[in-house]
Amino acid sequence: MCGIIGIYGNDEAATLAYLGLYAQQHRGQEGAGIVTLDGGKINRVMGDGLVADVYADPDKLHDLKGNIAIGHTRYSTTGGMDRKNVGPMLFNIQDEAISVAHNGNLVDLQKIRKELQTEGAIFQTTTDTEVIIHLMARAKGKSMADRLIMALDQVVGAYSLILLTPDGLIAARDPHGWKPFAIGKMDDTWVLASETCALDLIGAEEFREVQPGEVLLINADGLQVIRGQVKQTPHHCIFEYIYFSRPDSRIFGANVDKLRRRLGNTLAIEAPVPTADIVISVPDSSNTATIGYSIASGIKHEIGLIRNHYVGRSFIRPEQKMRDLTVKLKFNTVKGVLEDKEVIIVDDSIVRGTTMKKLVRLIREAGAKAVHVRVSSPPIRYSCHFGMDFPTRDELIANKRDLDEITAYLGADSVAYLSLEGLLGSMDKPANEFCTACFSGKYPVQLEEENRKDLFE
Amino acid sequence: MCGIIGIYGNDEAATLAYLGLYAQQHRGQEGAGIVTLDGGKINRVMGDGLVADVYADPDKLHDLKGNIAIGHTRYSTTGGMDRKNVGPMLFNIQDEAISVAHNGNLVDLQKIRKELQTEGAIFQTTTDTEVIIHLMARAKGKSMADRLIMALDQVVGAYSLILLTPDGLIAARDPHGWKPFAIGKMDDTWVLASETCALDLIGAEEFREVQPGEVLLINADGLQVIRGQVKQTPHHCIFEYIYFSRPDSRIFGANVDKLRRRLGNTLAIEAPVPTADIVISVPDSSNTATIGYSIASGIKHEIGLIRNHYVGRSFIRPEQKMRDLTVKLKFNTVKGVLEDKEVIIVDDSIVRGTTMKKLVRLIREAGAKAVHVRVSSPPIRYSCHFGMDFPTRDELIANKRDLDEITAYLGADSVAYLSLEGLLGSMDKPANEFCTACFSGKYPVQLEEENRKDLFE
Amino acid sequence: MCGIIGIYGNDEAATLAYLGLYAQQHRGQEGAGIVTLDGGKINRVMGDGLVADVYADPDKLHDLKGNIAIGHTRYSTTGGMDRKNVGPMLFNIQDEAISVAHNGNLVDLQKIRKELQTEGAIFQTTTDTEVIIHLMARAKGKSMADRLIMALDQVVGAYSLILLTPDGLIAARDPHGWKPFAIGKMDDTWVLASETCALDLIGAEEFREVQPGEVLLINADGLQVIRGQVKQTPHHCIFEYIYFSRPDSRIFGANVDKLRRRLGNTLAIEAPVPTADIVISVPDSSNTATIGYSIASGIKHEIGLIRNHYVGRSFIRPEQKMRDLTVKLKFNTVKGVLEDKEVIIVDDSIVRGTTMKKLVRLIREAGAKAVHVRVSSPPIRYSCHFGMDFPTRDELIANKRDLDEITAYLGADSVAYLSLEGLLGSMDKPANEFCTACFSGKYPVQLEEENRKDLFE
Amino acid sequence: MCGIIGIYGNDEAATLAYLGLYAQQHRGQEGAGIVTLDGGKINRVMGDGLVADVYADPDKLHDLKGNIAIGHTRYSTTGGMDRKNVGPMLFNIQDEAISVAHNGNLVDLQKIRKELQTEGAIFQTTTDTEVIIHLMARAKGKSMADRLIMALDQVVGAYSLILLTPDGLIAARDPHGWKPFAIGKMDDTWVLASETCALDLIGAEEFREVQPGEVLLINADGLQVIRGQVKQTPHHCIFEYIYFSRPDSRIFGANVDKLRRRLGNTLAIEAPVPTADIVISVPDSSNTATIGYSIASGIKHEIGLIRNHYVGRSFIRPEQKMRDLTVKLKFNTVKGVLEDKEVIIVDDSIVRGTTMKKLVRLIREAGAKAVHVRVSSPPIRYSCHFGMDFPTRDELIANKRDLDEITAYLGADSVAYLSLEGLLGSMDKPANEFCTACFSGKYPVQLEEENRKDLFE
Repeated sequence: MCGIIGIYGNDEAATLAYLGLYAQQHRGQEGAGIVTLDGGKINRVMGDGLVADVYADPDKLHDLKGNIAIGHTRYSTTGGMDRKNVGPMLFNIQDEAISVAHNGNLVDLQKIRKELQTEGAIFQTTTDTEVIIHLMARAKGKSMADRLIMALDQVVGAYSLILLTPDGLIAARDPHGWKPFAIGKMDDTWVLASETCALDLIGAEEFREVQPGEVLLINADGLQVIRGQVKQTPHHCIFEYIYFSRPDSRIFGANVDKLRRRLGNTLAIEAPVPTADIVISVPDSSNTATIGYSIASGIKHEIGLIRNHYVGRSFIRPEQKMRDLTVKLKFNTVKGVLEDKEVIIVDDSIVRGTTMKKLVRLIREAGAKAVHVRVSSPPIRYSCHFGMDFPTRDELIANKRDLDEITAYLGADSVAYLSLEGLLGSMDKPANEFCTACFSGKYPVQLEEENRKDLFE
Repeated sequence: MCGIIGIYGNDEAATLAYLGLYAQQHRGQEGAGIVTLDGGKINRVMGDGLVADVYADPDKLHDLKGNIAIGHTRYSTTGGMDRKNVGPMLFNIQDEAISVAHNGNLVDLQKIRKELQTEGAIFQTTTDTEVIIHLMARAKGKSMADRLIMALDQVVGAYSLILLTPDGLIAARDPHGWKPFAIGKMDDTWVLASETCALDLIGAEEFREVQPGEVLLINADGLQVIRGQVKQTPHHCIFEYIYFSRPDSRIFGANVDKLRRRLGNTLAIEAPVPTADIVISVPDSSNTATIGYSIASGIKHEIGLIRNHYVGRSFIRPEQKMRDLTVKLKFNTVKGVLEDKEVIIVDDSIVRGTTMKKLVRLIREAGAKAVHVRVSSPPIRYSCHFGMDFPTRDELIANKRDLDEITAYLGADSVAYLSLEGLLGSMDKPANEFCTACFSGKYPVQLEEENRKDLFE
Repeated sequence: MCGIIGIYGNDEAATLAYLGLYAQQHRGQEGAGIVTLDGGKINRVMGDGLVADVYADPDKLHDLKGNIAIGHTRYSTTGGMDRKNVGPMLFNIQDEAISVAHNGNLVDLQKIRKELQTEGAIFQTTTDTEVIIHLMARAKGKSMADRLIMALDQVVGAYSLILLTPDGLIAARDPHGWKPFAIGKMDDTWVLASETCALDLIGAEEFREVQPGEVLLINADGLQVIRGQVKQTPHHCIFEYIYFSRPDSRIFGANVDKLRRRLGNTLAIEAPVPTADIVISVPDSSNTATIGYSIASGIKHEIGLIRNHYVGRSFIRPEQKMRDLTVKLKFNTVKGVLEDKEVIIVDDSIVRGTTMKKLVRLIREAGAKAVHVRVSSPPIRYSCHFGMDFPTRDELIANKRDLDEITAYLGADSVAYLSLEGLLGSMDKPANEFCTACFSGKYPVQLEEENRKDLFE
Repeated sequence: MCGIIGIYGNDEAATLAYLGLYAQQHRGQEGAGIVTLDGGKINRVMGDGLVADVYADPDKLHDLKGNIAIGHTRYSTTGGMDRKNVGPMLFNIQDEAISVAHNGNLVDLQKIRKELQTEGAIFQTTTDTEVIIHLMARAKGKSMADRLIMALDQVVGAYSLILLTPDGLIAARDPHGWKPFAIGKMDDTWVLASETCALDLIGAEEFREVQPGEVLLINADGLQVIRGQVKQTPHHCIFEYIYFSRPDSRIFGANVDKLRRRLGNTLAIEAPVPTADIVISVPDSSNTATIGYSIASGIKHEIGLIRNHYVGRSFIRPEQKMRDLTVKLKFNTVKGVLEDKEVIIVDDSIVRGTTMKKLVRLIREAGAKAVHVRVSSPPIRYSCHFGMDFPTRDELIANKRDLDEITAYLGADSVAYLSLEGLLGSMDKPANEFCTACFSGKYPVQLEEENRKDLFE
């Protein structure tokens, strides 16, 4: 998963890009990068770690001169953690430098990669972004946008792309509209971002979304549609609503916060615990769903876990070992709240279950009489091939276990998930406009043999 | 303000000290240091910044061999930000190395410092800790604890002290008991800490507090009282309950969380807003008081501000300029929650008012119809001389402004503070056992001319 | 200019490569890199600065596991100082990783580079090494050596190349034999190096040179000649004898030290100063020529300049401004030696003349009665296109000035250069086997328009 | 050993101090520091490593504002390598900051240190400099110079001291004049330095020496003698002439270069090798003596060893292990010069003999027929207590071995040292004005029991 940002037509382009990345830090904490175009000169500053750390030295932003910028926060999906893989990537096509920020994941690239190499292509990384660039370098289009369209026609998967080119900024979104992709405007400045929370921080108004299948060019003449929206049912990633996007963002046409609370409401109706004394959240990601649960159930919302914010967000760290070590460092129980209480703990989702297992134990140690786990999404049973960094199916707690086994594993008094119907029924859009593959196994595109097998393991 | 930790009798002393500092990170983010004693050898690793950053290199903890450790997180009160001032400090007294971790602030040291210098003392820093050490070096006591008692008899102010000496760990607390100071135990390991949340993370049971005026020695023979509790009324810092301590800590004999919620209850009764639609907190510090307000008032608690945890805690950063710049980076409004609502925002305290002024503006910009500010403590009108890092009186918003002026300054529809009576009435202890100087101007000790003037400016 | 090293068949390959680079530090001080092959795994550690600094952390050599290694010291010729340009470069050809260390410079690459890009090649750098790699990626050869031969057939210029490939080490030298290129052997270990001084430090015996035009493969079967020596007159860079190579190396079949002393002898005969009291060198580069001059002339050799070795070698620093600043820091005069003396100062070559101008002034300030400059090579009047990092012709002191003007510019009492005939006559090989383009303007290969113009400016 | 510098009355004081340290880099390579006084404000920048590295960031010199500066290059004698021990040290005496740069070594400090501690003194380091400061802090003198004189009256040993105080610069030299100490002047700027080579680089004229026993004050009124020269025979360190000082310096009233050449002359007369073909030096330290030997003997001086200057000076590195590893990296033999020759190698001194042993072997491996070692100083048999960083007596090759054993150990055909008479006879001053303790065991001051024992081990 990644957060991307593009700025066109502002003397403070790098600073705005920086703010836009900062607002989208939750979309990738492994590294950050910004590229600017200053006249014909390309500048890039990137590094490992948090946005604020990468640009802690004020000289770095100062060095990023120019009024066009793109940026990228990243956590490793394909490509490993080599510094080379921290975007935005820089390439030369016919001695013209272009740079690419990419959110999403292409599928089934092995064959096309092999063909390109047979023709003499030299790959620097294993990222899917580089495949797009090689296809562009070989395309015979006149403009960079033409080359990009020819390249995208040869690949399948999820992408929200921003290209910084000598022609201007180019934005492209896959025909399924998997990932969110917003356009903002502030006076004469155009802003492209994964989420609207980036526009808010920058101070830009939301203009519209980049539509599924669109290719747009932003240059001195303004915003131009190079290729229009495709006519096909979109498949938005429903997990963005459940967990990934920030609650104050507006994606796929609705406020995340509103839908997330609605998931809590529906969960309270589907899976009540009438005897419970209090409902607590796993701060901060399930705070909103917990309030939804509390209001719909009438059970008092309390703060039973204190989160230590001096460590990062566990979901996003790529090393399993590190996560286990830091769980204890991340939450402390409030004994006065939990003692002698029957407690509902609401979480937005359960992936491996290792964190929740420990939380249940901590809550019991704090004196709770009973612990009921309620999850505001269905069980995750399938891999995501489109950019969400789930572990392999074997590691998913809900893959091979039924509800009783999960309850036993977590050590809870009861466990209940939101149903898929409940999830889809809480949305503002029709059910068929979402990708629910991680819950249902129904992938919107056909995957090659190797990946399909994964479904039936 | 500082957080301190001491570990006696554990092969993993440095790691436990590290965890103890990490849990107390909120008590000081400017720097951290740990000193261990390994046989006769002293080891020290300290650095600027967060605990997790200072010890990010695992070799650093590994180098801190020994089964006795003390540690310190610090933000600059006296002493400036020179690396020399990051504790624990190391000194030689008669070629025996001792190290000191100190939470608190001594008063009126100018005279004693001058006398010491006339006798040939050479000061390395301007910290009050170093004054204690020079007094110890000159004391004629046989043991380090004797020397310490002689030294402490010559100074006035707030201190919770841990000394690592060749004799063992020594703990000392000022007769007023200004700062919290807990003793924990885990099998044969003794733990000393500012707050019990450090004991929880380490896994130690609370044993008791270090009592006001006590001097304790922990060595192979266990815990020994070298000097007992003084017979005088204590003066606990009430601001620890309001803001500074972690809600999951137990200090001065009561759970912080419980009292903090009670402040919200009392505030709801003293300063209701019957027409309000929702009550929101300034996350995370006023979350607990807000829940208290919500429950007592029956007004729905909502999440109207999202906090970006990738920046630190504003109260604690020493440079005013930096804070202004980062306020916008720290909070984003949730428009769907605030739009067309009459909003109560609860904060635990208002110091300068600059952050709240911006929050009120942000909430209005998000579409709120009205914004009522409610503060779960009285107006701060006086300087703290005992370690709380308030600005000068001139910068305190409540020092020269009445409530109407504050309301105008903040741009709120109404502002109300908790009364001093309401504050003291919410406590579990008698009113005279607290230091309320920052609200009332009544300092528990007489200050010298220079400091007294400050009161009547 | 660069120094290169290759090691085949030694468990300490990285350490030997490190020693080989260290011995060749004079061939490039801007950066260093080593690549090893450990089973199928490629390891690389490179960095800016001196060899000893790049590998100052012992973990770095330790990480370079494997029994095959190549290495590179570099100073910027083409390619700028971007870290990307510090070799050895790593590329994938058909998903097989290869790495290249290159000493030399190709000419007239613009056209071929453009063609490659039209076919879709994406260049990461502007180095000539990368052009070779792209040609290899497109070549239809079965083995890497075949691909390399096909690629080299398309380019012109100077190169001593070492490739680390899955097939083994490949060595290739251009048909002119511009750059030195030695093969060494130590038990079962093969060593490739620019200069024999690297073999000496490693402890390997000189085996033979890589012959002009040869392509060799070193693998488990030993050393194999894939393409033999070409039948054409070589053109060895005579400047390697004059200045660049280390005096203890043996290149082009002769000891550098012996020839360099002979240049001093010939200079003494061609340009005597009968009245001089002493002859001094510019330490350390002209020490050997100065002893040659002293012996042939009978004039006493003294140490009149002390060199401060805490700064680097001026010729090699790419920023003019920095050099000017550091000249004064590099030499101090020995007054007791120079006072009231008529002094001959011998230098191996004069490029811009800025250093010598300052030295003459310093020597006069130390009390010398007269200063005679003697140069053990002819005037440098033409650019080098084959890797010697001379400045543009405009900056060469001898390009537009006659001897009187040079004498005036330097402020010397007299100036004399070794004649081209004297230079060639001092060699052990026939005159036509050397490239003397920088002195004579006779380039061994025809250059394209753009570069030819440079000759007649 | 250390190099010190002081600058008074120049807006570029820090830059001049930097140049002065750079010129004296040979006097200490472990660390460097500069302190400036800017109005009442003290600035300090210090670090580990070479001068050029410590101040590689130009901001560092820029931060050192002020027109008075002192500086220090250091290698560890007493005090270990803790950063605290890198001078110049900073102390407060009566809240007035003073800073001290010190070259030399005090003896027998244990008793005085213990007394100071009993009175309450707290030591930060184990350096002798700090003892002086504590004595100053306790002295009842009115001015800093008075306090210094009282402090120096209580100690014995070698010192050339520069103090930066609010009163101005103070210079003091011990009554024996062990260490060199020069005063320079450049317009209105005063310069103090260990060696005159620092004055040369800065561009200052030598004014005079600080005389043995003198205490001088430099302030706005110019140079004032606070205490005059003592009337006692001086004891200049003769090893400064032999090895330590730079050949272009003038110390103790004579040019180092001139005397060093004379040592070579005398050695040639005392220890001839009539059959030898060539004489070579160990570059660079014995270059001058070798020329002296060559001229007096008529044997041809050749360059048989090439020194790689990318590593530091072996004598000065404190870790024995590191030196052994780097010897091979430091010298390479020139085979063409040494092959089939009978070789004399001249070195200025032999301490442990480990380097020479390896050089002899290397020279033989290069084909020399015979190797004769000639040393331009007598055998070192005793420890230095006055600042020269010799190893313990046990490690000195000449301590327990006679000449035959040394010859066998070194593997040489013959070994000869300069006689003590020859050494003293080559000087310009009477023999009794030098400290020759390391050769003769005659220490100019009586040492305490513990140290005396060392003499008779």
